[in-house]
Amino acid sequence: MINIAVVGYGNLGRGIEFACQKNKDMNLKAIFTRRDPKTLKTNSNAQVISVEEIENYKNEIDVLILCGGSATDLPVQSPKYAKYFNIVDSFDTHAKIPEHFNNVNKSALENNKTAAISVGWDPGMFSLNRLYANSILPDGKDYTFWGKGVSQGHSDAIRRIEGVVDARQYTIPVDSALEQVREGKNPDLSTREKHTRECYVVVEAGADKKRIEQEIVNMPNYFIDYDTTVHFIDKEELIKNHAAIPHGGFVFRCGETSADTKHIIEYSLKLDSNPEFTSSVLIAYARAVYRLNKEGQYGCKTVFDIAPKYLSPKSNEELRAQML
Amino acid sequence: MINIAVVGYGNLGRGIEFACQKNKDMNLKAIFTRRDPKTLKTNSNAQVISVEEIENYKNEIDVLILCGGSATDLPVQSPKYAKYFNIVDSFDTHAKIPEHFNNVNKSALENNKTAAISVGWDPGMFSLNRLYANSILPDGKDYTFWGKGVSQGHSDAIRRIEGVVDARQYTIPVDSALEQVREGKNPDLSTREKHTRECYVVVEAGADKKRIEQEIVNMPNYFIDYDTTVHFIDKEELIKNHAAIPHGGFVFRCGETSADTKHIIEYSLKLDSNPEFTSSVLIAYARAVYRLNKEGQYGCKTVFDIAPKYLSPKSNEELRAQML
Repeated sequence: MINIAVVGYGNLGRGIEFACQKNKDMNLKAIFTRRDPKTLKTNSNAQVISVEEIENYKNEIDVLILCGGSATDLPVQSPKYAKYFNIVDSFDTHAKIPEHFNNVNKSALENNKTAAISVGWDPGMFSLNRLYANSILPDGKDYTFWGKGVSQGHSDAIRRIEGVVDARQYTIPVDSALEQVREGKNPDLSTREKHTRECYVVVEAGADKKRIEQEIVNMPNYFIDYDTTVHFIDKEELIKNHAAIPHGGFVFRCGETSADTKHIIEYSLKLDSNPEFTSSVLIAYARAVYRLNKEGQYGCKTVFDIAPKYLSPKSNEELRAQML
Repeated sequence: MINIAVVGYGNLGRGIEFACQKNKDMNLKAIFTRRDPKTLKTNSNAQVISVEEIENYKNEIDVLILCGGSATDLPVQSPKYAKYFNIVDSFDTHAKIPEHFNNVNKSALENNKTAAISVGWDPGMFSLNRLYANSILPDGKDYTFWGKGVSQGHSDAIRRIEGVVDARQYTIPVDSALEQVREGKNPDLSTREKHTRECYVVVEAGADKKRIEQEIVNMPNYFIDYDTTVHFIDKEELIKNHAAIPHGGFVFRCGETSADTKHIIEYSLKLDSNPEFTSSVLIAYARAVYRLNKEGQYGCKTVFDIAPKYLSPKSNEELRAQML
């Protein structure tokens, strides 16, 4: 059994609880929280412990999974805890990955620990597919589409508008764009041609819906470059129809191997729950990190550095006989 | 530059020639053939050399790519040449992979060489996707569909029928089955429900078409379990419309992470040329084998054992900054 602990008990932490139930070699031993441990209601027998005490558990935990956010939690937590634990995180601020990698790598190397950062589906499985497909078809073009799914960042941006009580924003790939790519037409697609945005918004009584709608559709960076639809709904409907956190997307590579000989590689995900799927990827990489550390492979890794065999509970012989 | 040589100059060997033109770090240095070298018309400046002389070139070639067949060529060639060269092959007799692995591994380990076997798309990229997806969604179901594409084995089987001059057999996935899987319905599908087979057959003048059609559709192992359509065409039409060797397929994993929370992972390939795509995968793994050997990682590997970063010409820093 591999002893797992999480730091943070939000959607990702709960996802790890579920994932440990699906993986027979995983034992969720502890949940570390910044909240008062007594106030946490969990779905497993894991001990709930204040994160203040985490260093006392460094000999009991094989892999620590960091379930905080990329903005402020992980840049601090991952390098800090990589001194005491093998860790996995889902750091997803693409532009800051090199800096984060270096910080975690230093901590892990100095302490003979193994870390995997930026694990999930994007970055993560989508990145892997971009790398494999680019290596196979060097003369080609990449396309990534996201959705249909809830974008947390865009939902939050709507919530910050005056008069808005709550909101859910769906990112939706444009079907005709997907079809053009799938048919090998290699289109040049603008931002607007790739995705639309659909918003479900709950407002305060008497709020100016016209003004709110204009603020949304014209919001720089978030909405102005997209065709955006705004639906005003009441709180009950939001809870009833928009509580789930689905997501997914498509990664394409379209390339030529010789004149007029085209190939299309497509990878897609359709996820009922973005955090539960991400947690399932994190658990598979926790298994890898555990094994790499046992082999003396220390330092920080990404999905690019880890051979696929390390993710599976099966032996190398079983994998060759059953899966190749 | 990585110096590449091939053994065998059929469709795969020609595909390697094309792939070396698309990859700036690859130099196709030699083509080893069992034929009289003078009779070979090639599409590159590579030296054409009798395979009898291959051992004389062991210090000039970084990676030897074996482009023969799995039935009789590779079981002999791969273990034999792994004594003198780093090798890559596309051995695809699934049931015999463990034995082939052991034979190649022994040769390579004894001689500090690195080998990658069963590289291509199935086995190869499809296997990788099965492994990743199974590791992420342990509670789930796998589906593999092949096509639309030319099955060489089935085309050959038709050609062995008395009165048949030539034939091309297409394997076609059943759309409604694909849709059920894509919608997460987890259907139980029989062989007949997954694929149909379409045959284009050229017969001798005066041949008994009725008998030939019956022999095809009732052929054990190859056709009897499928809905098979037979079209009789003339040689000109076969050459004009059925000269290409397209293929492809779909790998699905449909799984649950908690009650009623489903996820679907789909990987698909649409290939204008089966051998050119396979060759492009072989070349990416030749790069990996070259690097692994430089690092002292000897012995036989499969796609499961090789970290993705080794396939790309980009540095680890570039990969993290640009592709993660």
